[in-house]
Amino acid sequence: MSPKPTAVLFISCPDQRGLVAQIAEFVFRYNGNIIHSDHHTDVEAGLFLMRVEWELEGMRISREEIGEAFAPLAEALNMQWELHFTDRQQRIAILVSRYSHCLYDLLLRASAGELRGKVPLIISNHEDLRPVAEHFGIPYYVFPVTRENKAEQECRELELLAQHQIDLVVLARYMQVLGPNFVSHYPNRIINIHHSFLPAFVGSRPYHQAHARGVKLIGATSHYVTELLDDGPIIEQDVVRISHRDSVDDLIRKGRDLEKIVLARAVRSHLENRVLPYGRKTVIFD
Amino acid sequence: MSPKPTAVLFISCPDQRGLVAQIAEFVFRYNGNIIHSDHHTDVEAGLFLMRVEWELEGMRISREEIGEAFAPLAEALNMQWELHFTDRQQRIAILVSRYSHCLYDLLLRASAGELRGKVPLIISNHEDLRPVAEHFGIPYYVFPVTRENKAEQECRELELLAQHQIDLVVLARYMQVLGPNFVSHYPNRIINIHHSFLPAFVGSRPYHQAHARGVKLIGATSHYVTELLDDGPIIEQDVVRISHRDSVDDLIRKGRDLEKIVLARAVRSHLENRVLPYGRKTVIFD
Amino acid sequence: MSPKPTAVLFISCPDQRGLVAQIAEFVFRYNGNIIHSDHHTDVEAGLFLMRVEWELEGMRISREEIGEAFAPLAEALNMQWELHFTDRQQRIAILVSRYSHCLYDLLLRASAGELRGKVPLIISNHEDLRPVAEHFGIPYYVFPVTRENKAEQECRELELLAQHQIDLVVLARYMQVLGPNFVSHYPNRIINIHHSFLPAFVGSRPYHQAHARGVKLIGATSHYVTELLDDGPIIEQDVVRISHRDSVDDLIRKGRDLEKIVLARAVRSHLENRVLPYGRKTVIFD
Amino acid sequence: MSPKPTAVLFISCPDQRGLVAQIAEFVFRYNGNIIHSDHHTDVEAGLFLMRVEWELEGMRISREEIGEAFAPLAEALNMQWELHFTDRQQRIAILVSRYSHCLYDLLLRASAGELRGKVPLIISNHEDLRPVAEHFGIPYYVFPVTRENKAEQECRELELLAQHQIDLVVLARYMQVLGPNFVSHYPNRIINIHHSFLPAFVGSRPYHQAHARGVKLIGATSHYVTELLDDGPIIEQDVVRISHRDSVDDLIRKGRDLEKIVLARAVRSHLENRVLPYGRKTVIFD
Repeated sequence: MSPKPTAVLFISCPDQRGLVAQIAEFVFRYNGNIIHSDHHTDVEAGLFLMRVEWELEGMRISREEIGEAFAPLAEALNMQWELHFTDRQQRIAILVSRYSHCLYDLLLRASAGELRGKVPLIISNHEDLRPVAEHFGIPYYVFPVTRENKAEQECRELELLAQHQIDLVVLARYMQVLGPNFVSHYPNRIINIHHSFLPAFVGSRPYHQAHARGVKLIGATSHYVTELLDDGPIIEQDVVRISHRDSVDDLIRKGRDLEKIVLARAVRSHLENRVLPYGRKTVIFD
Repeated sequence: MSPKPTAVLFISCPDQRGLVAQIAEFVFRYNGNIIHSDHHTDVEAGLFLMRVEWELEGMRISREEIGEAFAPLAEALNMQWELHFTDRQQRIAILVSRYSHCLYDLLLRASAGELRGKVPLIISNHEDLRPVAEHFGIPYYVFPVTRENKAEQECRELELLAQHQIDLVVLARYMQVLGPNFVSHYPNRIINIHHSFLPAFVGSRPYHQAHARGVKLIGATSHYVTELLDDGPIIEQDVVRISHRDSVDDLIRKGRDLEKIVLARAVRSHLENRVLPYGRKTVIFD
Repeated sequence: MSPKPTAVLFISCPDQRGLVAQIAEFVFRYNGNIIHSDHHTDVEAGLFLMRVEWELEGMRISREEIGEAFAPLAEALNMQWELHFTDRQQRIAILVSRYSHCLYDLLLRASAGELRGKVPLIISNHEDLRPVAEHFGIPYYVFPVTRENKAEQECRELELLAQHQIDLVVLARYMQVLGPNFVSHYPNRIINIHHSFLPAFVGSRPYHQAHARGVKLIGATSHYVTELLDDGPIIEQDVVRISHRDSVDDLIRKGRDLEKIVLARAVRSHLENRVLPYGRKTVIFD
Repeated sequence: MSPKPTAVLFISCPDQRGLVAQIAEFVFRYNGNIIHSDHHTDVEAGLFLMRVEWELEGMRISREEIGEAFAPLAEALNMQWELHFTDRQQRIAILVSRYSHCLYDLLLRASAGELRGKVPLIISNHEDLRPVAEHFGIPYYVFPVTRENKAEQECRELELLAQHQIDLVVLARYMQVLGPNFVSHYPNRIINIHHSFLPAFVGSRPYHQAHARGVKLIGATSHYVTELLDDGPIIEQDVVRISHRDSVDDLIRKGRDLEKIVLARAVRSHLENRVLPYGRKTVIFD
């Protein structure tokens, strides 16, 4: 991670010759100093996916002018692109229910400077975790959800997120399925942690399912939320070994560590603009 | 692994007080020296599962008399039990198709003394791997399988296995689904390697499925074969990390190492009488 | 973990025939129900090491009488032994300096019921972490340490530990080397976390050492503290992959997760009476 | 891995602005299609390290002319550089003593097409592994080494390697320390596998050392050979979990799997021109 402010440009476009050269030349033309550049070609899809990061210091144009300067090249090469500035802290809303482990973990990492972002609010459908929010000095909003009021409550949550100019929504073991309207407001900007190695054990009570099947490893999966349950692009997964001795409670306990780490890695990668989702997959630029 | 000959007793019975004491006392009564004893209670099922291993040297009764001596206790406590002697080499048949990696791996481990067993024959539905068998000096039998002759060929294979007094059948990437008649002859004595982290990606072409889903880890699973495809008790699983850069061919390559190791661990545990299947699960005694 | 109160007996003695039977018979004689028993023989040392755990409910003698009842057998067989009761919460003192990650981790696990123990006090050589202690409602004592006052301060700390009837001292990134007098008061009852894969990178600044050497994995080691620096019996170790991209700061960040998990596993194992140190090693009973 | 022939250019030079752009522009000028480009800056050393790979098909100059065309830019920017063509199979000599596991592993991977290279000869100081070489149809040369004849035998080996135009020497558990003269002929082109997690347990009998220390993980390290024993730039490392139950023989057995995999990964990376050693470290381009 560079301490100096940098720009990150994500590009996806039809594959063709000269893309790396033209993009690098663009940056160099305005005297940007490239510190990372990486790309991936999905040969089957004929798709070129690139991430390039350069230091802003010393550039001949201001950061506001970069997009305009890049637009002609982007149009000529039929690119979809996004431009990010790494000194702009992303604003994160964390949604929780009753489990505190992922919430603590994210807030402690934010305090330690591990996450390039800040958390202006926490939303829950329960009162339980208010003391955690208070310990970290973060406003805590409760929206109790029932089958009847769910759509309405989600609208109010969306308003609150808009007010706070939220960039990223993190579901830190939030035990409600978000409705399609909510999801559509944050495409590839809602990260969930599912406590199984997807696509095994979709849906509810995955540790119970794993215990019943007698697997020898349990997993956790962080993914972007789409309209289909537990189906969005996977960002990160990991597993831990279990044995016949482990009860469901042991799986839950061992799983907590896994959930924390897998969610934190995904959030961190997203905040560092290293995740490029395309179709049902993601490219993770290291 | 003890260099001295030992007996291994597997016990499963309804849980009750005093089981460990009575079993240990039984061994000590005949002057057996216990070198490992371990047990597990499945609380939900009310089931006591034990493995006890002792040195035969110095026992007051011959190995032939042990079973008879144990029977009254077993009956009184409603036990199911099995008695094994570790100086008796188990006889293993390996079934293969065209991939050589698991076959080489098992034969090299057998040569290196890692497996408590010997391989008197290899069976295949193709000629391809005959040179591997010859390098290790092991007879190689080919039974080409078509939809029409499958039942018949499996009968001939069963005869051959019986002739060779086979204890364990290992499917080392054997690309045929065994029929229920074959399976019923070797309950919990056929070990398969499936190239996914079960229950994810059951069935054919799991690496293609994994690639399409965009997972970040791939797995392999060794399990006992039952009548249901990829559904038997799991013995061992492991995973390896992949990335967006990995093509299906890369998954196949990385998976090979995983398949070898996961299958070898399962076979080794079985041959050392450390696997106790019950219901749809296994207890692995370390 | 059993919810019912149990007794745990640790035994080490010269190896001989009949030990398992006689110990199991002892428990059964008083109607104890063994739920775990495991043993290990160090063949080179001729040493038998055992852990047996049984339910106290229904025993014919009180827990106070067990030791007395066991003593004759122990003497006859030349045993060293320890008896623990798992419903007795061990009392843990945590020593910290300025890093909060291990402290938070342990306190959160204690709150979540993951650790069989309670933390009546935290000791530090700095004021920094007082707010963390307050959040969890735990008294926080500061003993600033200089070269001159070190022996004296350690004496005062020992007094405080004695007052609080501390069973286990956990050094959660405590940045002082404890003197031999302090160490001698808690043999095999002080657990430290060292941020390297011992015996690589003994001493100070192990992440800097690892970075300079260009290793591809970094590790963490939890061990009992002895008079020799970073030399005591190892309880748990683990590693995480790094690359040439990782700066020393990245190693420190990645290492934090490792330190937390490795220390927590060691503390948990110790509190569950599953660690039996002998010589320079440990047996970890699963 | 691209099936089409590609060029790989390794560059190291003082860091400065515009390097990526100028190098990418160089490739594009001659109509090369970049398929991978990655770079790393060692900030402390002020060093820019890059690997760029492009398809040769459709280039406006022949592969013989590339170097000449690049030289002026290289000189202007004070670059050290190497140019490789991936359709040129590297020629590998494997040196072995008596253990067969790494030898089999490498030869099987070569047969399976996993390694971008061929093995024209195997050299040993013992006769033992000749049958393995014969099974794969590879010439096997024996040079018995004693303290007296070592320098002389190494000279004869060097002659043989020169005759066979060897690019890479792999020490697959070769139990002799190579002399400085030998090493100097293949700088960063001799890969060794050491059976410990370096820098822990340098020198002989590392598994015995690990067993005596009571570690909970054992490791393996592949590295380039330099004049100092077990000290060269590390290419790859990995570990496996062990327990108090594992004897030295168990460590040796578990270590074999580790040695095979760690050595194979290093050799594969080297053959794919993804390893750039500098100073005492390596950059591994994924």
